[in-house]
Amino acid sequence: MSSYIKKSVAAMQGYTPGEQPTDPRVIKLNTNESPYPPSPAVGKALQSLKAETLRLYPDPVSLALRRKIAALHGATPDNVFVGNGSDETLALCSRAFVEDNGAIGYFEPSYSLYPVLAQIRAVTARPLELGSEFEWAMPADYQANLFFMTTPNAPTGIQYHKALVCAFCARFKGVVVLDEAYVDFARENCMDLALEYNNVLVLRTLSKSYALAGLRLGYVVGSVPLIAALFKIKDSYNVDRITQAAALAALSDQAYMRNLVERIKTTRRQTIADLERMGFCVFPSESNFLWVKPPRGSAADLYRRLRERNILVRYFPGGRTQDYLRITIGTDEQMRALTDAIRTLAEAG
Amino acid sequence: MSSYIKKSVAAMQGYTPGEQPTDPRVIKLNTNESPYPPSPAVGKALQSLKAETLRLYPDPVSLALRRKIAALHGATPDNVFVGNGSDETLALCSRAFVEDNGAIGYFEPSYSLYPVLAQIRAVTARPLELGSEFEWAMPADYQANLFFMTTPNAPTGIQYHKALVCAFCARFKGVVVLDEAYVDFARENCMDLALEYNNVLVLRTLSKSYALAGLRLGYVVGSVPLIAALFKIKDSYNVDRITQAAALAALSDQAYMRNLVERIKTTRRQTIADLERMGFCVFPSESNFLWVKPPRGSAADLYRRLRERNILVRYFPGGRTQDYLRITIGTDEQMRALTDAIRTLAEAG
Repeated sequence: MSSYIKKSVAAMQGYTPGEQPTDPRVIKLNTNESPYPPSPAVGKALQSLKAETLRLYPDPVSLALRRKIAALHGATPDNVFVGNGSDETLALCSRAFVEDNGAIGYFEPSYSLYPVLAQIRAVTARPLELGSEFEWAMPADYQANLFFMTTPNAPTGIQYHKALVCAFCARFKGVVVLDEAYVDFARENCMDLALEYNNVLVLRTLSKSYALAGLRLGYVVGSVPLIAALFKIKDSYNVDRITQAAALAALSDQAYMRNLVERIKTTRRQTIADLERMGFCVFPSESNFLWVKPPRGSAADLYRRLRERNILVRYFPGGRTQDYLRITIGTDEQMRALTDAIRTLAEAG
Repeated sequence: MSSYIKKSVAAMQGYTPGEQPTDPRVIKLNTNESPYPPSPAVGKALQSLKAETLRLYPDPVSLALRRKIAALHGATPDNVFVGNGSDETLALCSRAFVEDNGAIGYFEPSYSLYPVLAQIRAVTARPLELGSEFEWAMPADYQANLFFMTTPNAPTGIQYHKALVCAFCARFKGVVVLDEAYVDFARENCMDLALEYNNVLVLRTLSKSYALAGLRLGYVVGSVPLIAALFKIKDSYNVDRITQAAALAALSDQAYMRNLVERIKTTRRQTIADLERMGFCVFPSESNFLWVKPPRGSAADLYRRLRERNILVRYFPGGRTQDYLRITIGTDEQMRALTDAIRTLAEAG
């Protein structure tokens, strides 16, 4: 039976997404979703969409959407690719920019999808261990065909200094994908590098700051030849009609997105203060989540005890990440419930 | 610059989708869309969908939708995979079931995406020329890791005899994907083979008979190990929340779909009679389109002259297909406009 399946696929495990509980009582702080709804413009776009139009194929190249994105970033539509979530775009990069005997690089720890993409392609995965404080640690002789760099990084929330990123892009011999999924929550971004360097792509998503994880829309900006390669190998109609319309509406309401981001950042400051007061080690976050180390007891234990109280955070077992928890910033009320629960657990010993 | 791009990707052209004109006056008979809207249940599902829920990721494994599909076909959800259109599912098959030194087979002519999928994987494409009447012609010693068989075939509309298909599946050493995109318009289907043979997958889409080309939903039914392999390598959240809800609504209204199909089949009979009366050679169609050879003049010329009159049909230049046109079945009114235009052109000489 298994002889029908490609050996490398048979041998691999696949990516494990964060849990999606159906119980509405669960306070869900595990997958970096927004606790707030998307722009009202999205709801209006959905209401005004005529179901009748769904009989027709979507624009295969999502031109209206790409024009909007290009205008936001001072690029042309030929610099912009849109995908069925960032995940599709990352997977396309792994197929467009790496020969069969090539290598894909990424930091460890980072987005746990990257090694899976290398497995699917059956190419060499070349993880690079971050330093003791999860800081940048790139050896001068490091080589790969493609490097996925999440900045701000997940699960640590740390943003790398732009000068370092820029210097790396300038000397790296392959394609660098700067995955800026969380960058709207950060102090700076690297979009200009995508338009300056031939080998740099900057990836964005509507899943986090635009509160549209359920819509599946990611986009990438970069030089025309790299973008054209992604177009060649994408599925013919990779972004459906509804998503094109809803994403256009969301991107057209920048003020709403900025406001959501400010609310999250305010809650982030408060939560960091509360957790530090309780003795947690909290890494400096430039994202919509916190990477924390509990003051006593194991992270696994705290994860389980919070879960018993219907508070779901993210725990990555095994390796260095097992000493930490990743906590999405929710509403003020949700974060109070979290800190109250932690306090109660600490008092109970 | 091009050194960043995988050589096989740099060398390939990509798939060319049928034209999507924006002029509403165009009678669009070129991409096998439905001339009728989808079930009213789809509109209701969209209206009742709360935009607020889009802040959350979709169910990564589309369980409710797979349960519905399983029930429709007497299968279990573990026999069912759903994708972002059939195209995603076909691409996943090319990655799951073919080693790097393997081969992908398909009939020629058939769906022009298949050779593109082989190019993207940089594996051997092993096309098999159909007979003079586009009939089945499979040599006994034919080998490949994966065979894509569209049945009813596109662009010919011909359905292969089930006994032949069954015999091929039984002796073929690789995986057979029976792409039944058009099967709801046909006299029989091969779904039972997917549940009987370990190496057979049957692919369906909501793009044609459900009138939802703009939604992007395809599904595949087959043995548990093959389906599990597709799940391992798919994008984490490949089907968005809205599509899952709308597809569930459409699949739950089988009566509406059956009624649409009957209307198309009635119009198909009438159009065949009209075209044959004008001397066209019309192949026996089990689909929502016709494969026709004009009685005089070139197919290219007729394509151009119809186009000048805002009637768009599909023309595949080069090779054997250049003598034919593929015409989607539209409404009765649209098909009268087509046959009237052809008559006028013939009279004008």
